[in-house]
This record gives sequence, structure tokens and C-alpha cells, in this order.
Amino acid sequence: MLHTDTICATSTAQGMGALGIIRVSGNDSISIVNQIFKGKDLTKVESHSVQYGFVISPASNAQPPTSNPELIIDEVMVSVFKAPKTFTAEDLVEITCHGSPYIQQEILEVLISKGARLAEPGEFSQRAFMNGRIDLSQAEAIADLISAQNKASHKVALNQMRGGISSELKDLREELINFTALIELELDFSEEDVEFANRSELQTLVSSIKTKVAGLLKTFEYGNAIKNGVPVAIIGKPNAGKSTLLNYLLNEERAIVSDIAGTTRDTIEETINLDGITFRFIDTAGIRETTDEIEAIGVEKAKEKVEQAKIVIHLYEDDQSILEGLMDLLKDKIVFNLKSKIDKVGDIDPNSQSPAGFTEFGISVKGNLNLDRLKTELVDKIKSGVEEDAVVITNLRHKEALQQALEALNNVESGMRMGLTGDLLAFHLRETLKHIGSITGQIDVDKDILGTIFGKFCIGK
Amino acid sequence: MLHTDTICATSTAQGMGALGIIRVSGNDSISIVNQIFKGKDLTKVESHSVQYGFVISPASNAQPPTSNPELIIDEVMVSVFKAPKTFTAEDLVEITCHGSPYIQQEILEVLISKGARLAEPGEFSQRAFMNGRIDLSQAEAIADLISAQNKASHKVALNQMRGGISSELKDLREELINFTALIELELDFSEEDVEFANRSELQTLVSSIKTKVAGLLKTFEYGNAIKNGVPVAIIGKPNAGKSTLLNYLLNEERAIVSDIAGTTRDTIEETINLDGITFRFIDTAGIRETTDEIEAIGVEKAKEKVEQAKIVIHLYEDDQSILEGLMDLLKDKIVFNLKSKIDKVGDIDPNSQSPAGFTEFGISVKGNLNLDRLKTELVDKIKSGVEEDAVVITNLRHKEALQQALEALNNVESGMRMGLTGDLLAFHLRETLKHIGSITGQIDVDKDILGTIFGKFCIGK
Repeated sequence: MLHTDTICATSTAQGMGALGIIRVSGNDSISIVNQIFKGKDLTKVESHSVQYGFVISPASNAQPPTSNPELIIDEVMVSVFKAPKTFTAEDLVEITCHGSPYIQQEILEVLISKGARLAEPGEFSQRAFMNGRIDLSQAEAIADLISAQNKASHKVALNQMRGGISSELKDLREELINFTALIELELDFSEEDVEFANRSELQTLVSSIKTKVAGLLKTFEYGNAIKNGVPVAIIGKPNAGKSTLLNYLLNEERAIVSDIAGTTRDTIEETINLDGITFRFIDTAGIRETTDEIEAIGVEKAKEKVEQAKIVIHLYEDDQSILEGLMDLLKDKIVFNLKSKIDKVGDIDPNSQSPAGFTEFGISVKGNLNLDRLKTELVDKIKSGVEEDAVVITNLRHKEALQQALEALNNVESGMRMGLTGDLLAFHLRETLKHIGSITGQIDVDKDILGTIFGKFCIGK
Repeated sequence: MLHTDTICATSTAQGMGALGIIRVSGNDSISIVNQIFKGKDLTKVESHSVQYGFVISPASNAQPPTSNPELIIDEVMVSVFKAPKTFTAEDLVEITCHGSPYIQQEILEVLISKGARLAEPGEFSQRAFMNGRIDLSQAEAIADLISAQNKASHKVALNQMRGGISSELKDLREELINFTALIELELDFSEEDVEFANRSELQTLVSSIKTKVAGLLKTFEYGNAIKNGVPVAIIGKPNAGKSTLLNYLLNEERAIVSDIAGTTRDTIEETINLDGITFRFIDTAGIRETTDEIEAIGVEKAKEKVEQAKIVIHLYEDDQSILEGLMDLLKDKIVFNLKSKIDKVGDIDPNSQSPAGFTEFGISVKGNLNLDRLKTELVDKIKSGVEEDAVVITNLRHKEALQQALEALNNVESGMRMGLTGDLLAFHLRETLKHIGSITGQIDVDKDILGTIFGKFCIGK
């Protein structure tokens, strides 16, 4: 562990609460807190113990604080954690004070007056990473975990925090390192034309890593969906039953969103949660407009909505003409082409095939026909191909690193086919390792990138 | 300590933070948390120790949780506090989890599934009171402490939390109890016409309690001012320098308000902090209106502002006629009648006396004349008569109890003068004791009143 300065920050949410936690980490954290603490001598207490006492302002060091309440800032509990078994792997102190913004500010000020410095966003996690306690993907998962708002994203973040991605890549990466080292060794003997690295074994390894990387990349769509929600457009002619279907889904499956500042009621109303995945309905206000207005706006409106959507639900009674103008846009979408009101007008031919690869069936909200099927298929389409406990990529940085790794692996493969020289192969292998390593931070990650990663954290984490 | 059910609640502020604390209190708190905790056996750890581990959902009890991340809710630190040395004087557990509303909700749900119940607002403090760890005025001070936003209100709340009011009243109350007991004893011997309670000593005691109670009552004005801020109206003819003075005060002394949700920028802008006291300027938007508009609105506008104010600052160059229509309203206000722009027009006669008891002097913002005097006098007028470290009443309930006690004491005094019989004296003495005791909760406080007091707390306190 490097000698670091001591950082401090409020780690609990902003605003008024019964309690707040101020975290202090660094080599001098215990001695700094000890200077402003009236209670047991913190330098002498056991690790992982909690002490009752008072935070006092520096001026009061000379005087007995109980005689002058002015100098007491708060009645607190102080938890002392000694390195290395702490979150940051440094000496760490947590001051649990009353949850008043004023008090927290005052405590931070006296800590700073004694030599601590206000932490940057994410700096505690960054130290945990720098000190080798967690890898970079685990650190990133902490931020995801805190912002997770549903079961699916919570599960994925927790899995990643516990080292999911790292362990997935670890073994393959180590084999790849071995091969690369062997190829680089060949370079030292280049005049002798030896082959330490068995090319067909390397071929097999590269191919299995490619499969693994491609598999992880495939999960990104799902990962992104559960992290950010899935935008859904419901389109169709007036009176096709759009509003009826939407109201049914919203009433049945309304997302239970925690009472977070900034979550407007509007957003809540247009969101449902199926199997832990949040589906967001685009511009549903439009759906609820009078039919006249919709008629007037027509296909243009539908186009706009489809562009923003990942899933498009098209409802029709008999006239599917609205789809014609949208076929280009629908190519990359998951499309449900549903005949509505089938309790009245009859279902579609069960053997009919969709030429465009759409999912086609009939539904009826009134008759309660195929509604559960719709919900199940919405989830299945998003989960498609991702196994139950699979490691899921949710982070755009990871996705990009995996894409670059895949590209480098392709270069290795084609290089072998073209009989590329060892030094060029080694170059592409190093590239692969660099990109895979950047996910977990096992290779040196650029300081700017680290800044970007941890800058997204909240203060105090 | 009574056997109580076990309560749980999130004790940190709502919203997203790095960390959150869930508190669990009651006889079964340790065993309940132990059932959902994967880590050390919490029933066997020492009090005031912190354990690392995982909160798991109940379904996973049978399986090793590490094999199935689905069943883990969060990685946590659990602090165990064994009765009676805890905040509630009951067994108390604090779970420090990641500060995600989703995770906190999940943890509360598993706690509830194991037999805990969601705490009512203030219920932890109420238990601390019920179990005799703190008195009622101390419990009330906790809520004040959390919402304190400046130095003065923080200091008063902390003083009260540490038993300020209770100790102030304690000795006098005990003497009063003794006297009351003696007078009641006389009643048993009423046919013998004895006097156990020395009437002149009682007279002295009652008079000294009256002085004390009246002194405390006098602090309420100050207490209320520092708790809720002091409304100030600046009035005067157009061009009297109102806006100049306001801008000067706002720029020099702008209150540093923490970044709390709901504190709008508008409010911040019109508030200053002098010596820990917040002064709020009423309707300063009006001051900044064009002079034409003000002219039009005239005295009516000034009246409205004066009605809301505690302090009125009247600025004039030469014409004080605006005051004439306001004299009735100004009777109960602290009035500064200030001649402005005295760098140009010359100061007032230093020997002039204000017939209405107004504070009169001249100022000039441009010439920097008497500005510090104004600030000092603003604070002095509010603090008037309240000594530096005096116990200060900030709570309306306390004020009312003290007023009722004072009334009862007056009845005792006049009763003695009128030679009232012992039983009637005893009645008034008991009344006095009831009202004084209700402040600290030493007498039985009505359950409804308790509900009102603790209902104002935030959840988790």
C-alpha cells in the first residue's frame, strides 16, 4: 500500500436523515479523527469496534468539552477499521453522526483542519482498486449496484461486484499471456526459426476466447436493457386498441419505483416492470390523445416513435398498411405484429408465418387472450440467448473493450492464416490482452480513463 | 425495560448515496438480523463490534449463498449494540449497506419477513425516552439538532439534547415536590392545624421558580428566532436606499445554506446570517421593482410587509411621513428608524431621542457609515437579555408548558396571600409540577401528545 493522504466525505445520501456517515480513509485517518474525538483513544481501540463519544471542534482541545457545549459538534459513534481488512485496504474510520447537513459540514471542516482532504467522487473505491482489493470492473459495479432500481439490474451489478466478469476472463487471459510470451520468446531466436508456441493450440485458444468474448458481447443488449430500461413503441391506427393495451399493462404491472428525488410521476406512470426488466413506453401521451389528432399526425408520428424504440408493438384490427412505410425502420427492432380484439374479430391463422420475422399473434384485452403470452415474449426477446446466471455486460466501456479485443483476435486469426511473422502476431496478441485487461484494470489504465470512471461515482463512495 | 417488538427503518437520508444505514431495535433485533446475515454468528459477537458479511434473502438459508448470487441482497457491515448501552437502551443492530433505495427496500423486506416491523417516525427516539435513556425534551432536541441549519440553532439544540432544560428545572422542581408533599401531609393532620411547610420558605421558592420560568420564557423569542429565522421588512419611500442596503447585506453576509433539496435559490438569495441567526427579508422582490410601481402601491404595501415582520427597518432621506400610518402596527416590532445616505445629507443629531422607542441613527452604504453598527444591533435586539450560554427555549410545547406553570405559580402566590387552604394550595402546586414535568416527560404525558411529538421526527430516528 502506498502512503496516501487522508480523504474524507459524507457517504450517505444528501439531505436530512436521522443518521449520516462520514468516511475517513488513509494512513492518518485514525490519528486525525482521534484529534477531534472526545471518547476512548482511537489509536488504541481494536479494529472493527465502535466507540461512543463526541466530535469536538479544534479550539476545544485545551478545555474539557463537557464544560462548554459550544465546542461540541455532535454526539457520534465512531467505527475504526484498521488496514488491510477495510473497504479501501487503508486505515478507515466511519463517523456516524446525526443526519443534519449542517453537522456533517462542520465535521468535515474540522477533519480538514486536522489534515484530511475532501474526497473526489469515487475516490474511496478508486483507492480500493489502487490497493488491489477490487478490480476495475468490480469498482464500476459498485456504482451500478447503488443505482440499481430493479431486481435484474441489482442482480447483474452484484454478480459483477463479486468478480463475475473478471473470473469469466481470467483463465483464458492467462493462457493467452503464456502463448504471447512463447511467441515473443521465438523472436529472440528468430534466426533459428523455432516455434515454441504451438500454432494449432494457439488457433484453438484464440477461437475459444473469441467465442467467450462474442458471448459476453451478446449479453450487452440485455445488460443495457436492464440497466437503462427498454423503450417500447405501441403503434397502430386509431381504435386499434393501443390505449386499452397500455392501460392494461400499466395497471397490471406498474413498476414500483422507489421514492427518489427526480423521479417524476409521469415517468413512473409510463413504465412497467416485467421479470425485473423495466419497459418504458414512448410518448404514451400521444396514445391517449383523441383519435382525431392521431389520425392527423399519422405515419410521421409512428416513425418518430419507432426510431426511439427497441421493441415495437403494432396493433391492428384488419388494416396493416401503417407498417408499409416503416419496414426500413423496423429491420433492427424487435417487432410484435399483433391482431387486436380477437375476442370479437377472430384470431389469426396459427400457422401463418411472418415474412419480415415479426412475432405475430392475436390478443384481446377484453377477452384476456394471449396477454400473458405477450408479457412472457417481451421478456424472452430481451433475454434472448442470455442464460439465467450468465455474466452480463452492462457497461459501455466494457463493451467497447470487448469489441476491440474481438477485432484484435480476428487479426491474430487472419495473421496466422496469412503466415504473419511472430512479431506481428505478438503485436495483435498484446493488443488483445490490453483490451481484455483494461476491463479489470489488470493492465495500466490511462489516468484520464480512471478519472472518467470514478468521476461518475457519487461523493463518499 | 419492557419487552417490545422489534422495529426497523432506514435511518439515513432518502435517495442515492454511497452508504445507507438500516437500524433494527428490540429484544429480537440481533437474532432477526442474524437470520438474514451470512458472516459471523451475531448472537456470539461482542457488543459495539462491526462484522463484515452479506445480507441474504430468506429463501437461501438452506443453500450456501456464495454459490448463487441471486440470493445475496448486499455486501454489508453490521454493527451490534447490546442493551442497555445503546441509543434505544434495547438491543440494537445497524446494517450499513450500499446506499441504493432498492437495496434498502429489499433488506427491510427480509427483516420484516423475519418478524421485525417497520418503525413509525421517531420510534427509535421514543423508545430511548420510554426506556429512560433520555427525557422528553432531549428527544425533542434530537429532531431540532437534525434540522438545525446554522450555528446558533445547532448550539441550542445540542445544549438541550445534553439535558440543558432538564437540569435547569431539576433542582427547583425537586424542592417544589418536597413542599407539595409537606402541604399534602398537613391535610392528613388538618384538624390539628399544623404547618409542616414553612409558608415563607415556600413563598421564597415559588418566587425563585417564577423568576426561573419567566427567564426561560423570555428566551423563547430568541429561540424561535434562531430556529425559524427572523423576518425583516425594509420599508421607505422610493430612492430612500432600500435596495442599496439590501444588496449590501446580501453580498456581505449571504447565508451559507447547505445544498438541501427544497431550498430554492430564491430563498437563499433573500436571507442573511449574522452571528448564527438567520434574517429573512420579506418580499424583497418588491424592493427591487421599479420605483414607479412602489410609488403606486405605497403605504398599503408597507403595511403588509410590516405585519409579517419582527424587525422593521425604515429608511428615509428627510421625509418620514410613511411611518405615520404604521404606528399602530409598529408597537410590537423592533424598529430601526434610519436616516440613509448620511455621507451626503449629514447625520442625525446624536442626542435626539425617539419618542416611539425606535432605534435611531444614520447610515450610509456608500460611505460605509454605521453598517457594522446596524448588524450588531440587529443581533443584539434579538438576543436581548439572553445570556451567552443560557438555556434557550425553542419549542412551542415547552413555551406553553412554562406559561401554564407560571400561571399555576401565580395561583399559588395569590392563594398564599389570600390564606387559601392547604388542599387548594396543593392543587395549584400539583398543577405547576405537572406542567414543568411535562417538558421532560417526568410526569405521564398523554399518549396523543407523545404521538404528536414523535410523529414529527423523520423515520429511522
